[in-house]
Amino acid sequence: MIQTKVTINVRYAETDQMGVAYHGNYLAWFEVARTRMFKDVDISYKKIEQDGYYFPVLEVSVKYHRPALYDDDLTVVARLEEKPVLRTRINYEVYRGDTLLVTGSTTHAFIDREGRPVRPPPYVTAKMNELFRQSPPPQPQ
Amino acid sequence: MIQTKVTINVRYAETDQMGVAYHGNYLAWFEVARTRMFKDVDISYKKIEQDGYYFPVLEVSVKYHRPALYDDDLTVVARLEEKPVLRTRINYEVYRGDTLLVTGSTTHAFIDREGRPVRPPPYVTAKMNELFRQSPPPQPQ
Amino acid sequence: MIQTKVTINVRYAETDQMGVAYHGNYLAWFEVARTRMFKDVDISYKKIEQDGYYFPVLEVSVKYHRPALYDDDLTVVARLEEKPVLRTRINYEVYRGDTLLVTGSTTHAFIDREGRPVRPPPYVTAKMNELFRQSPPPQPQ
Amino acid sequence: MIQTKVTINVRYAETDQMGVAYHGNYLAWFEVARTRMFKDVDISYKKIEQDGYYFPVLEVSVKYHRPALYDDDLTVVARLEEKPVLRTRINYEVYRGDTLLVTGSTTHAFIDREGRPVRPPPYVTAKMNELFRQSPPPQPQ
Repeated sequence: MIQTKVTINVRYAETDQMGVAYHGNYLAWFEVARTRMFKDVDISYKKIEQDGYYFPVLEVSVKYHRPALYDDDLTVVARLEEKPVLRTRINYEVYRGDTLLVTGSTTHAFIDREGRPVRPPPYVTAKMNELFRQSPPPQPQ
Repeated sequence: MIQTKVTINVRYAETDQMGVAYHGNYLAWFEVARTRMFKDVDISYKKIEQDGYYFPVLEVSVKYHRPALYDDDLTVVARLEEKPVLRTRINYEVYRGDTLLVTGSTTHAFIDREGRPVRPPPYVTAKMNELFRQSPPPQPQ
Repeated sequence: MIQTKVTINVRYAETDQMGVAYHGNYLAWFEVARTRMFKDVDISYKKIEQDGYYFPVLEVSVKYHRPALYDDDLTVVARLEEKPVLRTRINYEVYRGDTLLVTGSTTHAFIDREGRPVRPPPYVTAKMNELFRQSPPPQPQ
Repeated sequence: MIQTKVTINVRYAETDQMGVAYHGNYLAWFEVARTRMFKDVDISYKKIEQDGYYFPVLEVSVKYHRPALYDDDLTVVARLEEKPVLRTRINYEVYRGDTLLVTGSTTHAFIDREGRPVRPPPYVTAKMNELFRQSPPPQPQ
């Protein structure tokens, strides 16, 4: 499992007239946490694009439990729980202090510049193999 | 069932460096279609808020099938398929011409200014009863 | 002079907790009007980029006289008052009905994909010459 | 003079298809720096609003010298150079390392909840008097 935490301070631009953070902004915050999560295991998403790959969002789901407010310091947790196979699913939790505000997930796959599904860049596959190295299966006695 | 279509022209501000419409923007476009859907049945969301109610998004899910591009004219369909009970679920489809790009849904409930769950405003309930008037159940012979 | 009007309906996503349209959104609305203004004289900004040119914003200034509100129908006027030479300046006015809310301007220049200043695409220059054809200077008697 | 620096990491959501940070986002970044600048002198903009005041943007101007890119770490400097009288002008500079990318300014005034111009909250005036304490005028000999 890979897990990263980032801190987001809610900007005034991110509020709406309900007086809370607009629900659409969480997708950008998830992305900030996702970018950092990859950096933390030495994968630069910027470099991935320079190498001719994209990693678009194919699905997103979010549950809003409580609102975030202007100037709140939020903790966004991103978590890759399983070794990516064809699709990569990342889970997110957004907290203010110990209070869980929002949960969500995004699903991704690698494509090339023409939008065709492709295998991940080799250095991503190698890193994932390293991070999700399976313990050997139990041996019969 | 209530159904509304709106046209959205993709703004330059809504693109990202992948050269497509940023995936987070669909939530704002869903909202444009939702606002119009309520207007089409004479419910003003603006008035709902003035009356002391909010109708926040509790859940959202989106599937991205194909990207939308700058200056595309998109059709966003919003559909209320079932009479709202405690929660209201609205479904969305985004098309470019006949091509389906994105599907999604949002779930909502009414709250008051203190954030407590409340019954819908009476005129919303009355309108929903009118729009989802059930045909009488089949009579025994 | 070239002048275009577009209608913008203020989205919920575009409000902030002051209960008005967030001041940063006007830049995107100016752009919607600018894109349409060029289309109205048969210049597609989309095609300009496909041909290898960009027309970035070099300067922007905005004066906010009155706020715009959620669900307001705004008229955004874009106006090219003088034939562009090295730089192109476009002026904007945002109205709700007859009430002027905001005025602004943007300044642009053409660059190539490497970010170097370049002459405009020939079809843009030709169109500007056509649109800003000067009446002949007064003849001495 | 009051001056504050904040660091902004350019989000993917903030890029556009020109491959750079969208020009409209700088207004939100200026605001992040402005919020922090006030906090640094113990003025909470959040509290100002709770006390019934707003501090809207009346004018903004921006000059874009060079583009910012995805994942860039930017330094945004906000500077209040003169003691605010009727209007408050704040200047901004955005750097990547030592390279100046953007300069700008915003002008503000205090209003009440009905949008009427008002004097600043007393604690803001007191703090400004303290920070911009004038040296005594030169004495006649």
